[in-house]
Amino acid sequence: MTDGRYDYLRDPAAIYAESFAAIEREADLSVVPEDLRPLAVRVIHACGMTDAVHDLAADPHAVSAARAALAAGHPVLTDVEMVARGVISRRLKGPVVCTLKRPEVDIIAHRHGTTRSAAAVDLWRDKMFGAVVAIGNAPTALFRLLELLHEGAPRPAVILGFPVGFVGAVESKEALIEDAPKLGVPFITLRGRRGGSAMAAAAVNALAAPLSVEQEERR
Amino acid sequence: MTDGRYDYLRDPAAIYAESFAAIEREADLSVVPEDLRPLAVRVIHACGMTDAVHDLAADPHAVSAARAALAAGHPVLTDVEMVARGVISRRLKGPVVCTLKRPEVDIIAHRHGTTRSAAAVDLWRDKMFGAVVAIGNAPTALFRLLELLHEGAPRPAVILGFPVGFVGAVESKEALIEDAPKLGVPFITLRGRRGGSAMAAAAVNALAAPLSVEQEERR
Repeated sequence: MTDGRYDYLRDPAAIYAESFAAIEREADLSVVPEDLRPLAVRVIHACGMTDAVHDLAADPHAVSAARAALAAGHPVLTDVEMVARGVISRRLKGPVVCTLKRPEVDIIAHRHGTTRSAAAVDLWRDKMFGAVVAIGNAPTALFRLLELLHEGAPRPAVILGFPVGFVGAVESKEALIEDAPKLGVPFITLRGRRGGSAMAAAAVNALAAPLSVEQEERR
Repeated sequence: MTDGRYDYLRDPAAIYAESFAAIEREADLSVVPEDLRPLAVRVIHACGMTDAVHDLAADPHAVSAARAALAAGHPVLTDVEMVARGVISRRLKGPVVCTLKRPEVDIIAHRHGTTRSAAAVDLWRDKMFGAVVAIGNAPTALFRLLELLHEGAPRPAVILGFPVGFVGAVESKEALIEDAPKLGVPFITLRGRRGGSAMAAAAVNALAAPLSVEQEERR
């Protein structure tokens, strides 16, 4: 590209390197355990906010559990198509499953008087054992997942809880932090209202490959 | 749903109403023009951050231009699949187009020494006239779009600029704010590093329907 009108970095590998360098410079990554830092960097990269690292909360076994599950080809279960689109599928051995558009969802949602996102979680049961769950949008999906686990549903390998918003996001993530250990399921989450599909997808991508891969793949 | 373990709002319409009420309560929407407020609410809703309203910048004609273009069935052009997934397509009369996975993209990116996201914009030319452009990820895509417009490419109806991150996001959005008026193209953007596909999709969704529709559609 020789157009000199705008002076901007065009080389993909250089952009990644410079982005990650800026994050390492500005974010206090020391507030999270070492094995969580690559995920923290990817989540910060996805949202443009270095202070997000302070809201990360995780079970000490979550990263290793997630990496093992993905390496073994277990599925990624997600509440929204946007997460499925944001996940770099060539890094995964297993499928990414979003049940939100299944025809039964409307019926379950109507019967239970709940959201379609929560109803869609009821369709995860037979895929839940050992799976990586990535909630990238709906607090009700995270609440429903916790309810099913209390009722004895199969244990996923890890829950990545990144619902976003003003109603239930804070509360569902605090419930995750409090109850997931009792339920025997490792978790990674971002406290507060912030979250969303880009962060959830970034978390999955971080757990599916080392950071160095980002730059290499884009050379 | 009668499970009493968690006390949370399950009714979709009530969740939307309560979310929008919280945003109206907490966000200083008076800092943006009245016709931009429904979009501001949707963008805030997508990211969970009320202070985002202070970073919104827009041409005074942008909202009406975007609404007219969408009503006329002009396409939505986007840099990432995640935006395409987040757009509520039943509200649109035209298609949502993302050229990122077209086979020519790798060749153009390699030839120009740029990102795939920027290269994909080169494939928009024949669809650009009158379109709603929604950049939800890559600063290089926004820079490339501005370059093409400087070179005389067909004018889109509006540019929704929501690239995110640490390298080029700030700069590409400032370039948009400065140059779009000279280029004769209305714009809406979010200053700073924040942005992303969820906000870009929320902006499109806001422009494609009045806010009241959110609640009605989910009853």
